Amino acid sequence: MAKSIIFWGQILIALHSFAQTECMQWGVFEWSMNASVSGNPFTSVDLSAQFAHNGRTVTVNGFYDGESGFKIRFMPDAAGGWTFTTKSNARELNGKTGRFTCTPAGGDNHGPVRVRNTFDFGYADGTPFYPVGTTCYAWVWQGDERVNQTLETLEESPFNKIRMCVFPKQYDVYIQNEPFCYPFEGSKEDGWDFTRFNPVYFRYFEDKIARLADLGIEADVILFHPYDWGKWGFDSMPAEVNERYLRYLVARIAAYRNVWWSMANEWDCVGSKTVKDWDRLFRILAKKDPYGHPCSMHNGMKWYDHSKPYITHLSVQTTDFFHIQDWRKAFQKPVLIDECVYEGDIPTDWGNLSAEEMTGRFWQVTCRGGYCTHGETYLHPENVLWWSKGGVLHGQSPDRIGFLRLIMEKRPEEGVYPFHNLWNKEMILIKDKEYYLYYYGYTQQKAARLRLPEDVKFKVEVIDTWNMTLTPVEGLFSGNAEIRLPGTPWMAVRAVAADG
Amino acid sequence: MAKSIIFWGQILIALHSFAQTECMQWGVFEWSMNASVSGNPFTSVDLSAQFAHNGRTVTVNGFYDGESGFKIRFMPDAAGGWTFTTKSNARELNGKTGRFTCTPAGGDNHGPVRVRNTFDFGYADGTPFYPVGTTCYAWVWQGDERVNQTLETLEESPFNKIRMCVFPKQYDVYIQNEPFCYPFEGSKEDGWDFTRFNPVYFRYFEDKIARLADLGIEADVILFHPYDWGKWGFDSMPAEVNERYLRYLVARIAAYRNVWWSMANEWDCVGSKTVKDWDRLFRILAKKDPYGHPCSMHNGMKWYDHSKPYITHLSVQTTDFFHIQDWRKAFQKPVLIDECVYEGDIPTDWGNLSAEEMTGRFWQVTCRGGYCTHGETYLHPENVLWWSKGGVLHGQSPDRIGFLRLIMEKRPEEGVYPFHNLWNKEMILIKDKEYYLYYYGYTQQKAARLRLPEDVKFKVEVIDTWNMTLTPVEGLFSGNAEIRLPGTPWMAVRAVAADG
Repeated sequence: MAKSIIFWGQILIALHSFAQTECMQWGVFEWSMNASVSGNPFTSVDLSAQFAHNGRTVTVNGFYDGESGFKIRFMPDAAGGWTFTTKSNARELNGKTGRFTCTPAGGDNHGPVRVRNTFDFGYADGTPFYPVGTTCYAWVWQGDERVNQTLETLEESPFNKIRMCVFPKQYDVYIQNEPFCYPFEGSKEDGWDFTRFNPVYFRYFEDKIARLADLGIEADVILFHPYDWGKWGFDSMPAEVNERYLRYLVARIAAYRNVWWSMANEWDCVGSKTVKDWDRLFRILAKKDPYGHPCSMHNGMKWYDHSKPYITHLSVQTTDFFHIQDWRKAFQKPVLIDECVYEGDIPTDWGNLSAEEMTGRFWQVTCRGGYCTHGETYLHPENVLWWSKGGVLHGQSPDRIGFLRLIMEKRPEEGVYPFHNLWNKEMILIKDKEYYLYYYGYTQQKAARLRLPEDVKFKVEVIDTWNMTLTPVEGLFSGNAEIRLPGTPWMAVRAVAADG
Repeated sequence: MAKSIIFWGQILIALHSFAQTECMQWGVFEWSMNASVSGNPFTSVDLSAQFAHNGRTVTVNGFYDGESGFKIRFMPDAAGGWTFTTKSNARELNGKTGRFTCTPAGGDNHGPVRVRNTFDFGYADGTPFYPVGTTCYAWVWQGDERVNQTLETLEESPFNKIRMCVFPKQYDVYIQNEPFCYPFEGSKEDGWDFTRFNPVYFRYFEDKIARLADLGIEADVILFHPYDWGKWGFDSMPAEVNERYLRYLVARIAAYRNVWWSMANEWDCVGSKTVKDWDRLFRILAKKDPYGHPCSMHNGMKWYDHSKPYITHLSVQTTDFFHIQDWRKAFQKPVLIDECVYEGDIPTDWGNLSAEEMTGRFWQVTCRGGYCTHGETYLHPENVLWWSKGGVLHGQSPDRIGFLRLIMEKRPEEGVYPFHNLWNKEMILIKDKEYYLYYYGYTQQKAARLRLPEDVKFKVEVIDTWNMTLTPVEGLFSGNAEIRLPGTPWMAVRAVAADG
């Protein structure tokens, strides 16, 4: 009798719903079903599913995608057979079951990024991930042509993480254009119906996340930001709208393996929310995201308390690199300098670095044990500044940042830490007895003094970080070694154990 | 009867002692007397004098200058008639009296420097003093020829303060030579008699202070330092020797108006002394110096507590300029960045800045409300590095620092403060509604955005801090003004009220 019920239940699913039968590990499994529900389906329907594999279960929320369609997305983290059962207050959506086969990840799919070794990151498959970020806050909302151009630029760039907003942005003279649609039903003029999301907006947004994933780029998704100033009002929605939006977005995009959460950009400039509001939003996020994506909040003037348990890493705006080692020590988390002024020539103090300085900041941050993020703000006749709109890159730092990325990818995966003492002038990334990466920045010293272990022989290379050359120094070195430098800025030295 | 005694007393003085009858205000008045005393005159004789002028008295200590000669030095701070009476446990030196006329200061004698307006400095005559320091730790002990050369270099330089040690110094390969004599009797080989100073040493030293005074240069006298490493042992003398040395030095040189006290260089690297030891030395200094010369202590890794009452200003070694405004706020004292790495090309991390960077640091520090100090460490075939030995300057920053000094000397004397917010990226020296000095450093912005008061009209000049040009911008400006810049680094902008 029970068997018969299950049989009929399966027929019912086949009639109304669609689910993949296969999904790659760390891919997006999607189940969908049409159902007519009374009332507002965005607010009246609770939908979730419990996925099971080898006795382990994961519960995720579903969402309403418009046109009577409900969806559940899930990122399986292990190959093999998975089953699932839905749960809903809508009878038609409740108790649906299904199964699919998860095939092992392959190709460039290394899984989601996690904190690793306290201060670093790695993909779920064990491959290390060294963040090399850039910033295009509102690139998604610049129209298909620009969006495609931005993706092409990113593909050719060294960047593997991009900071990007969900909501549209306005800022100064540089970005004032409207997105082609909005996240809620209604209009700027007549007001928004905050109880009804516009699925078109979110589908368009998440498609960009998927396309970034295809390029191997992490999407550092900024959930709230202050660059609204009442134009749309998305920076000052009621608390229950913020929370519903957050749950909705998590249900839609958490299954994309390349998602990072940035609760806000310049959180302290969002006047409508208190620290308690942010705390609550973080708790919702932590509860609703079953995958534990990297999660932080970018500061304006004031720091949010990075020691809170749901903060996985520091996302810092600063031009003070001196204390990166202190912050590592204090918070025991990775330090991302997610904004340290951009390469460009605009008049404001946050977008006017030379390429040399932008490159130098990447090296400084790296050799102090942090990770740095790029942005570009060159004046443009049509106001297409990479920092907000994407497009193409004009600056000279990305090539150099790419060169640094190659160097980062050759470092030992574990046991690497920055030199740290109270002077804190020297910038050295170290793995004891194996690896020493010295950065000399804007100094013009004619020699580098290395203090290497006495009992290991090292190969030494002089690195010109600007001209992107690596020049081996003849011989092997141990103990105190003096290496000649050309006496020009932007030099580095790498010493690697000869048998390493 | 009393009159007769006084008469005979005066005769006695005339026979045995010598005193000037005239002394310029803030000059050095010196009284000397030969006396044969039993025992060791350095330790057995207490000698002081009370100077009186218009009902006000000042007590100073005298000192033994060898060859039976005792001296008392005094810096009168007011023109007019002064009298004095000596006091001593040596009968022959006790109760001597005299008088002299203090003539008003003139010429380049502006008196000693004092803290003024909480964060700045001024001479006693009211002339502002903007410290523009350099560093020649052991220049005094390089022989007459080099000493004269150093003084000639200083005369042509922009510097008005020099950091210099009393004791000889050794450091790395760069300075290893011996002074021509030593501060104590005895020898390195056979040991020092710490109870007997060598007056020749101190006379030679104080002569250099006097010659600096003639050039209008403040002598920032470093009383202790760690660069001895057991070579002479002056960094680890017994506590009572340190204290006797301190009292002796104060008695000898405090009357020179251009003296500043730096209790130590890199105090925290002097392993032989605890914070309590330093506290006690400071209390002795504060008690024995009747003039209240500027007084501080330069740090290595750790800061001494600058809030202590005898610390008149911060003497900081750092490359972190970001917090200068915070330190001003916290300590309510002037902030001197007395070491921020030197212009040069040596391999160590403290002496390898380009001239651009050294100049840029001066501007940064200035526009953040501090004062900066120069040093130079270019490799030299005979190891004559300015930083320790003096000689001649090779670098390109001093000319630019001189250009900055001219700009500093045109700032309003009072009411000037640095812009300060939590971002703290912008560097602006401000006097409300009168004066705004913006520094743009290594940025390449194509325009400067000024936020000037709406109700005042300003003349604006673009300053190329490297090429040392001041270019007036046509017109007058108020409110939000955008000023074109060349898009190259090292630019500044000055806005001065048009009726100012």
